[in-house]
Amino acid sequence: MAKVFHRLMKVDEAVELVKRHLKSLSLELEYVALTEALGRILAETVVSPIDYPPFDRATVDGYAVNSTSLLNADEENPVKLRVVGEVKVGELPGLEVKPGEATEIHTGAPIPKGADSVVMSEYTKRVGDYVFIYRSTYPGENIAQTGVDLMVGETLLRKGVVLTSREISVLAAIGLDKIPVYRRVKIAVISTGCEVQPPGSPLKPGRIYDVNSSTISCMLRELGCQPDILGIYPDDFDVLREVVGKALENYDVVISSGSTSAGFGDVIYRVFNSLGKPGVLVHGLLMRPGKPTVAAVINGKFALGLPGFPVSAMIAFHMFARPIIAHLIGLPIESPLKIRASLPFRVKTGGGVKTIIPVSLTSNHFGFFSAYPIVEESGAIWRLALSDGFIECPEERDFLDEDEEVYVTLFSKSIKPADLVFIGSHCLGLDILFECFREPLTMKMVNIGSMGGLLAVKRGEADVAGIHLLDPETMQYNIPYIRKYGLEGRVVLVRGYARTQGFIVKPGNPKKICGFKDFFREDVTIINRNKGSGTRALIDEGLRKASESLGLKFEEAVKRIRGYTFEAKTHSAVASAVTHGKCDVGVGIEAAAYACGLEFIPIAEESYDFLILSDRLQKKPVQLFIEILGSDMFKRVLMERLRGYRSLKETGSVVYR
Amino acid sequence: MAKVFHRLMKVDEAVELVKRHLKSLSLELEYVALTEALGRILAETVVSPIDYPPFDRATVDGYAVNSTSLLNADEENPVKLRVVGEVKVGELPGLEVKPGEATEIHTGAPIPKGADSVVMSEYTKRVGDYVFIYRSTYPGENIAQTGVDLMVGETLLRKGVVLTSREISVLAAIGLDKIPVYRRVKIAVISTGCEVQPPGSPLKPGRIYDVNSSTISCMLRELGCQPDILGIYPDDFDVLREVVGKALENYDVVISSGSTSAGFGDVIYRVFNSLGKPGVLVHGLLMRPGKPTVAAVINGKFALGLPGFPVSAMIAFHMFARPIIAHLIGLPIESPLKIRASLPFRVKTGGGVKTIIPVSLTSNHFGFFSAYPIVEESGAIWRLALSDGFIECPEERDFLDEDEEVYVTLFSKSIKPADLVFIGSHCLGLDILFECFREPLTMKMVNIGSMGGLLAVKRGEADVAGIHLLDPETMQYNIPYIRKYGLEGRVVLVRGYARTQGFIVKPGNPKKICGFKDFFREDVTIINRNKGSGTRALIDEGLRKASESLGLKFEEAVKRIRGYTFEAKTHSAVASAVTHGKCDVGVGIEAAAYACGLEFIPIAEESYDFLILSDRLQKKPVQLFIEILGSDMFKRVLMERLRGYRSLKETGSVVYR
Repeated sequence: MAKVFHRLMKVDEAVELVKRHLKSLSLELEYVALTEALGRILAETVVSPIDYPPFDRATVDGYAVNSTSLLNADEENPVKLRVVGEVKVGELPGLEVKPGEATEIHTGAPIPKGADSVVMSEYTKRVGDYVFIYRSTYPGENIAQTGVDLMVGETLLRKGVVLTSREISVLAAIGLDKIPVYRRVKIAVISTGCEVQPPGSPLKPGRIYDVNSSTISCMLRELGCQPDILGIYPDDFDVLREVVGKALENYDVVISSGSTSAGFGDVIYRVFNSLGKPGVLVHGLLMRPGKPTVAAVINGKFALGLPGFPVSAMIAFHMFARPIIAHLIGLPIESPLKIRASLPFRVKTGGGVKTIIPVSLTSNHFGFFSAYPIVEESGAIWRLALSDGFIECPEERDFLDEDEEVYVTLFSKSIKPADLVFIGSHCLGLDILFECFREPLTMKMVNIGSMGGLLAVKRGEADVAGIHLLDPETMQYNIPYIRKYGLEGRVVLVRGYARTQGFIVKPGNPKKICGFKDFFREDVTIINRNKGSGTRALIDEGLRKASESLGLKFEEAVKRIRGYTFEAKTHSAVASAVTHGKCDVGVGIEAAAYACGLEFIPIAEESYDFLILSDRLQKKPVQLFIEILGSDMFKRVLMERLRGYRSLKETGSVVYR
Repeated sequence: MAKVFHRLMKVDEAVELVKRHLKSLSLELEYVALTEALGRILAETVVSPIDYPPFDRATVDGYAVNSTSLLNADEENPVKLRVVGEVKVGELPGLEVKPGEATEIHTGAPIPKGADSVVMSEYTKRVGDYVFIYRSTYPGENIAQTGVDLMVGETLLRKGVVLTSREISVLAAIGLDKIPVYRRVKIAVISTGCEVQPPGSPLKPGRIYDVNSSTISCMLRELGCQPDILGIYPDDFDVLREVVGKALENYDVVISSGSTSAGFGDVIYRVFNSLGKPGVLVHGLLMRPGKPTVAAVINGKFALGLPGFPVSAMIAFHMFARPIIAHLIGLPIESPLKIRASLPFRVKTGGGVKTIIPVSLTSNHFGFFSAYPIVEESGAIWRLALSDGFIECPEERDFLDEDEEVYVTLFSKSIKPADLVFIGSHCLGLDILFECFREPLTMKMVNIGSMGGLLAVKRGEADVAGIHLLDPETMQYNIPYIRKYGLEGRVVLVRGYARTQGFIVKPGNPKKICGFKDFFREDVTIINRNKGSGTRALIDEGLRKASESLGLKFEEAVKRIRGYTFEAKTHSAVASAVTHGKCDVGVGIEAAAYACGLEFIPIAEESYDFLILSDRLQKKPVQLFIEILGSDMFKRVLMERLRGYRSLKETGSVVYR
């Protein structure tokens, strides 16, 4: 059976191959009203039919004069001129200004004959029919010359320009009210798969919601295309052949998702090949995520099969579809902005394929960016939504190094501004804390464990780090680590709250777990936590003691434990693993066990505190954070809502400075 | 008369003052369909109602196994497992996988009971009811765990988030099809002034088109607001009082433009003050452009009077209105992105007020940005449309220095990508050249004269510079300057075309101008060109010889010339100045004179050539540029369309390397 991809191609090669087989669309032109042209692409080069300004205009309120009348005027020696009239806006002046004369003139009014400059009213004193002028002028002063901005016949905007408010202002200035723009590219969007169900109704067993239809169509709209969602179709050759075939007749491009891998039921590449020539050109990209991508040219039209996993589909869209669509439109699509950043820690990647790693950007003391990798699983939609962009690790590399310089391709056209950057250990208490904020703060939250948070504070990248690190020597939480990492004097530690950690097991505790010793039992499978998390430190400390009491070396002992290498990243993931029978026991907080209806055997109360750089205490969002942490409201809601959480007398106070 | 602004305020102070008097709007919530939520602001915090993935899923096609079955499997020692079934997507598996067994499984299908990992089909060989597996697995391998992305009860998106395609993907993943978003802020847009006429009909004398209504409403839509254009009203207290008063009842915010300065007919501040308390808070900003800005709070609503000049209105909108609207909405508006750049030359600014200078960004050899100031007049709409953003010169500075580091606030959320950067002298021939491009190239054109172009090439910021620089010693064009500026070996000079320069005068040459000597006559006013332009070099060379022949020193002689200090920046501006009687004579190319129906007295033919860095010759757009320059089509169209232009035998050839 083992079907394989025809030949995995490098992304850039694949883009070029498809482009070679695709001619640009000749998009028709349509006229839209001026303000409706915003965001559209100009379809004709615009040459100015008028001068702008259309006449010499005063740029200030004052008096129009001939500069020769004022040759030696200054504050000591004002020149007295006779006022011969007034020029208002919107009318052509009939009068003429002779030497020794002046006219009142308003901002925007045409300059009368004979005048070559305007003196601002601030430098004048009117007395009856005369005006005293306290400074001289030079020819052209305070006058916008006819056509100084736009000249008749000048090329103003070239076709192909994306119209923003600034281009609209130019079109308005020359009096256009119907703007020639290219019609939008029409793209059919199809989802495939028997497991895919549209949002809006309760999820059936074994099903997942259709993420790709709406996401792909929104990505297309962000590019200025006009997507139509055609629906969800089963993974069936005949059905898909009909749907895709009809879509190819009615649309400029067809994009499906799902049914693209080289496996059992995946039919898109057969469908594409059956519909016309040259057919499938790309079946599999040397890229992760995004590998199972199929691209075809069918009788001159572009048909694209994106992977079914939403994050894979999104990455393949950005890396592969976007440049081809740009080529197809034959018009510039704004390139995504790239930003230089450094990696805060080493990242392993899959050698041999290009690896795309979404990252969250934070800036450090010196205004440089750090790029925190925040997704590993290709299904991690939510984390993708939290990221600012992605980095590319080339095919020939196996890792990217700590502090290595990388280029981040931004997803949006700007970095999401964050008023408060939180990096550190994941905690449900934080959700409650942020709910208590009245102000509309934007938060950036990077969950990479206590140790990651501490290091991020050290590098100045986090405003606040949430940490719960047990020092095995002193059996004290958090404070010893400030000294260990040389942060004395640079940081404060604000007391958070206590959380009860313990064993999470199925209701009734079927395997009778009562201590870390049970982890070594042959009939027990555990789930571990990720290295660097405070909970992992607690687990390893417990296992160290347990292995000692069994007379074993720690390193040897843990090899016996089933599931020791299987690491969950959050308390909730531990609880979920127990719920679904993937393991018998894990260590986590009581609230996570309670939320899943699991049994909980307490081990210890730990202190979840907040590490903050001293100089960030002046930041208002940081002050607010501390204020809310210490508020009665937060303490009450925390204990009401989260089992095993306890606010402390010192909650919200600085306990180490 | 001389009315004055009440008190000019610093922009930041003014923003804070208005914010103190304005409460945030409590925007109502409305539900929109999933894909219609793109770009809207989420009005409720979204907590996940499901786990995602909702079940443990295979992430590859292959065989679901228990890792203990494959403990020592490798390429040499495959393990043979019995295939007990097949798990398809969209159904819950009824079967169980025991040690020694495997099931076929498809990407996205639920993991059957008993299996803890999936081995990819690439590492398997199927033989009848059995499968040989050539590697071991670890628990969890190729499985997306239930809830590893989203967990029930987890806070996914906080209210106040702007929904991009990535947030839409999260909302789809949890099955939402109606999304709670804030209603858009409704803003009334009013233009004032008797001279203002709507686009779409021929311009009447003394009138200008209404630029502000459409531009302001597009800027508001770019911020996500919902503007309504109410029309153009005369500068009349009673009329405006009624219009603004009614608008304040029906809209969240009212924005007018025009009628804001402290002069004769400007009534907006009286209108605002008459409509409620506290009334006008700001009347005049310490900023250029944008000074005549009026801001009021009227019975709790925000009323803003922007300046009438479009560029002033746009700058005041960005600097002043934007942060207040953000405060009013009470939601984060994406902050404009700022980019570090350096100034290519010294810029004088108006001390005492904050000066806003639009700039065009180009990058140099090392990827750093240079910010070319490209607007000086506050009416220069078109040049604003060409700029990428603006820099701010603080109140206390009189200039910004060459090479000084500046921060550029981007207008759009990204830098417009340019395939070809042209910096140098303005030439009508270029418009024709670019019309001949078939490919949709994006061009960045910065017109700062020949000398500026030469220096931009030296700094690596321009791909191509258009220059026409006469060396008075050798009387040769352009090549001597390559040596003078130490560019030998680093650049090539590509021959452009010849243009005839001469005196531009009114039809019939009423002042009988026949040489530079006439510039010294008392009855003659000239218009000069900007320093650094090739034409200025030609003028000064001519005047030097003329003053010598009159027995005068050049520096003294030019002081006698009327209009010598009045500098136009383009050939067209010179022709326009002559047309409108602002001066009697200027020097420029024949084509400009011809376009305005003026008389032309030739002085000399000059060589307009293209300076290109040698290493840029590899850039495809540069190659295209040279190719088209040398094409017969271009040469033909050039001579057909532009009087006084002549293509040369060497046009399009490298004449210096």
